[in-house]
Amino acid sequence: MSFSPLVEQLMDALRVLPGVGPKTAQRMAMHLLERQREGGQRLAEVMREAVERVGYCQRCRTLTEEPLCGLCQSARRDDSLLCVVESPADMLAIEEAGGFQGRYFVLHGHLSPLDGVGPEDIGLDQLETLMEEGLIEEVVLATNPTVEGEATAHYIATQIQRHGARLSRLAYGVPMGGELEYVDGGTLSRAFSGRLPFDSE
Amino acid sequence: MSFSPLVEQLMDALRVLPGVGPKTAQRMAMHLLERQREGGQRLAEVMREAVERVGYCQRCRTLTEEPLCGLCQSARRDDSLLCVVESPADMLAIEEAGGFQGRYFVLHGHLSPLDGVGPEDIGLDQLETLMEEGLIEEVVLATNPTVEGEATAHYIATQIQRHGARLSRLAYGVPMGGELEYVDGGTLSRAFSGRLPFDSE
Ligand SMILES: [Zn+2]
Ligand SMILES: [Zn+2]
Repeated sequence: MSFSPLVEQLMDALRVLPGVGPKTAQRMAMHLLERQREGGQRLAEVMREAVERVGYCQRCRTLTEEPLCGLCQSARRDDSLLCVVESPADMLAIEEAGGFQGRYFVLHGHLSPLDGVGPEDIGLDQLETLMEEGLIEEVVLATNPTVEGEATAHYIATQIQRHGARLSRLAYGVPMGGELEYVDGGTLSRAFSGRLPFDSE
Repeated sequence: MSFSPLVEQLMDALRVLPGVGPKTAQRMAMHLLERQREGGQRLAEVMREAVERVGYCQRCRTLTEEPLCGLCQSARRDDSLLCVVESPADMLAIEEAGGFQGRYFVLHGHLSPLDGVGPEDIGLDQLETLMEEGLIEEVVLATNPTVEGEATAHYIATQIQRHGARLSRLAYGVPMGGELEYVDGGTLSRAFSGRLPFDSE
């Protein structure tokens, strides 16, 4: 025995969400049908609209339903600074950390030749066009500190260095507020090799 | 800074799902928009249809998009046995455990006067109609072993006892395969007061 076909379809479809297995899908379906029909109706409507209408910003490629995202439309950002990130979530994290006043470019992933993800798939032709405008003086390569992120940063560096912009990378090191004991070895050895003079003031 | 209005709306709407806070909602929205547009489209479509079309079985009140659920349509069940449960999920759990061959009646909750949930809200008028048919010889009150579940079982027992059907309750005790050490005190004392002669065969 099982639930009715439509309820089973709902549980099945919910599993497209990350981290949702059969048990969680059942709990979600029951919650929607037993207690949250209105919320479910609204979620269905917003989800339909979002997957249909949300695209990439024509300039920075972040997710937006407008031709240009809010940040690209803003006149209050520094056009000479460009930060390259793998995802819109990374862009938001940097914005929330504060301090960066430049523009962004979102790759939506990283190079992965084995999976068939090449330069055009992460928008590097578009990045090239952006560089050709000649406004950018520094590019911060803020891809993930993973093997793939590093490789992608190196590829981009090679591609755009002829435009004469400075290239920089986020500093590596032990995360602030963390305990050394729990920092992984790779990070720790990076933090050692990148150690700085101690400022006693 | 935040995501675009439509992306923010999606993250907001996802929080209707149980156990989904702001961080999980963001991860889900990003997953759908970055990697699972088709799955998101299908989920939106199925969810819209389900919250619109799934109703209660006219006989047992479980969730179904048909007038009668599959189990009520089946001729291979024992009409003299009725199991009363709080939710469709409880019904499925009992079916999956196997052994019960009767029919069900789903309350969709329990009595809760303080929240304004009275007898009609859990379908007791409909249960009365079912009892009046005179086919049911035993009613198994399988509400949850909670204060509210117990109170609801007692209320139902009082209501239907005049129909002359036997009333029974699921046995309480220590869960099979569990370790006594981890069984809560209430369950343990119930298991003691309900202890049975040891069958040495
Ligand atoms: Zn943009
Ligand atoms: Zn039914």
